[in-house]
Amino acid sequence: MAPPFLAACRGEAVPWTPVWFMRQAGRHLPEYRRLRGEGSILEAIHQPELAAELTLQPVRRYGVDAAVLFSDIVVPVTGFGVEVAPGTGPVVEKPFRRATDLDRLVVEPQPYVADAVRLVVKETDVPLIGFAGGPFTLASYLVEGGPSQSYGATKSLMWSEPGLWADLVGRLATIALASLRAQVAAGAAAVQVFESWGGALSPADYRRYVLPALQALLDGLAPLGVPRIVFGVCTGELLQLFSEAGADVVGVDWRVPLDVARRRLGPGVALQGNLDPAACLAPWEVLAREAREVLAAGGPAGYIFNLGHGILPATDPDQVARLVELVHQETAR
Amino acid sequence: MAPPFLAACRGEAVPWTPVWFMRQAGRHLPEYRRLRGEGSILEAIHQPELAAELTLQPVRRYGVDAAVLFSDIVVPVTGFGVEVAPGTGPVVEKPFRRATDLDRLVVEPQPYVADAVRLVVKETDVPLIGFAGGPFTLASYLVEGGPSQSYGATKSLMWSEPGLWADLVGRLATIALASLRAQVAAGAAAVQVFESWGGALSPADYRRYVLPALQALLDGLAPLGVPRIVFGVCTGELLQLFSEAGADVVGVDWRVPLDVARRRLGPGVALQGNLDPAACLAPWEVLAREAREVLAAGGPAGYIFNLGHGILPATDPDQVARLVELVHQETAR
Repeated sequence: MAPPFLAACRGEAVPWTPVWFMRQAGRHLPEYRRLRGEGSILEAIHQPELAAELTLQPVRRYGVDAAVLFSDIVVPVTGFGVEVAPGTGPVVEKPFRRATDLDRLVVEPQPYVADAVRLVVKETDVPLIGFAGGPFTLASYLVEGGPSQSYGATKSLMWSEPGLWADLVGRLATIALASLRAQVAAGAAAVQVFESWGGALSPADYRRYVLPALQALLDGLAPLGVPRIVFGVCTGELLQLFSEAGADVVGVDWRVPLDVARRRLGPGVALQGNLDPAACLAPWEVLAREAREVLAAGGPAGYIFNLGHGILPATDPDQVARLVELVHQETAR
Repeated sequence: MAPPFLAACRGEAVPWTPVWFMRQAGRHLPEYRRLRGEGSILEAIHQPELAAELTLQPVRRYGVDAAVLFSDIVVPVTGFGVEVAPGTGPVVEKPFRRATDLDRLVVEPQPYVADAVRLVVKETDVPLIGFAGGPFTLASYLVEGGPSQSYGATKSLMWSEPGLWADLVGRLATIALASLRAQVAAGAAAVQVFESWGGALSPADYRRYVLPALQALLDGLAPLGVPRIVFGVCTGELLQLFSEAGADVVGVDWRVPLDVARRRLGPGVALQGNLDPAACLAPWEVLAREAREVLAAGGPAGYIFNLGHGILPATDPDQVARLVELVHQETAR
């Protein structure tokens, strides 16, 4: 029988609702903080043994139904001097400005990523989720030079030089595809595309300027036969586009009730989400109530429990442990 | 005949689609930067002549169909040591922590606000929009102590002390109501409630924890007989709640197509919005295309053209001027 996480991705019957958490391998875990120390996240990702161990920590502690590779969406994008600043996010030394910058967008083999995947799958039976950044999200970091509120520079480039923009997001999709292929070849059983900031665009603009690149990425993944998850925050109005692009599973943020999301996605697409990450900071009774509401809206089939965004660093691991227990116990069939 | 802006708010026939812009009185205008200099925004708001002049600048330059008072949503909340940090937003010296902090939430008369309103309405025939902050948005600044990404502290308080939270948002609604009453008494012809960050909550949580306070605010405004506009970003799933709470007009951010918003709002509610503010940074041809798409979705009745959030400081005023011209010319009946 398929592991519950993979069965749910495919809309098949499951013995219980599977659960994992975005950023489950991260700062909220004391064992993570001990092992990682204060060093750069990119340096940690370059060490397969360390990356594998960080990936496995939450699987051991929580008994979640999937592991997610300890990595970062900027890892496959070399040539721009990307660093991940603690508490800020990716910062880009040499931002993308003009056509000649396309030459820096090349597929580079990253053996340490595949090595980390191999080490993880040797150690655990739960499926490992590989991941990559979505085209708009990666482009926004490269163009803005870091996180942004308005994405003014990114959208200006998109609108004023649509040909160059199409080349940019097209190459980013190619790079993400190469990375995901390598992760699957090494043993990843599913992939998630983090189009985290795609919701900064109106649906008309996302369709016009980004959807072709996302679709190319998902089409390229199709022959691998692994579930393809797409996720982004504030993407309530993009859900149908994600479905159209070929996503097998769509991650939903906490703003959109799952029953509403299911109507927008249409049949044949599984859902993942969508408890407000801040709910883990609430007293247990409140957290349990909010989780039960999410479970009821998610339904029994084609559904994976998760948060609507990553675990907040201030989260108490004991709350997360009880949450996993609640999901497993109350959905056991 | 009623001014087009007020007619559109009421769903009546208009000679053209009215247009104004959130943050039209602001940093993107050279005359604003000249007059304001580098001083504190709160100091400027305390000077009625200055506030009135800043309010009138965009009306003169653009020929927009409404003025919006130069002020800030934190103005009516005294007793917390609020300052508005340039480029950051409101910063709170003594955040809200516990029940005793409720004593600091009192209605204070602010004669300089009413004075500014009186000076504006003496100088212009276009309707003046007064405004106040929505209950969640104001509470988030007071609890977080400043702008936030996750609203973790605010939501923790909301979930762990629901009684205290209800008192907090209830008092903030009372304070906002008093401020709006004073603005209308002095001559404001419409009011906008900026529930800017309300979209950080799921609809279930907004309904449970904030809607009663918003409804009390809107109910309190009803006897004044002026249109009541409610706006917030990422509020696609809250639109129906805003309508339920009694909004006459709902401001929509650029993520939700206006025809979709109209379906969610139901009949009898006018729409305002929703061009992506970053589109003003695009070449004119692109800006014109995006504006025409918004106009088409907005339709001829019960609709006010605006951006989906405030004008970005980097915006060229000439682009805004052409945009106003386009809206007026292409919708003239």
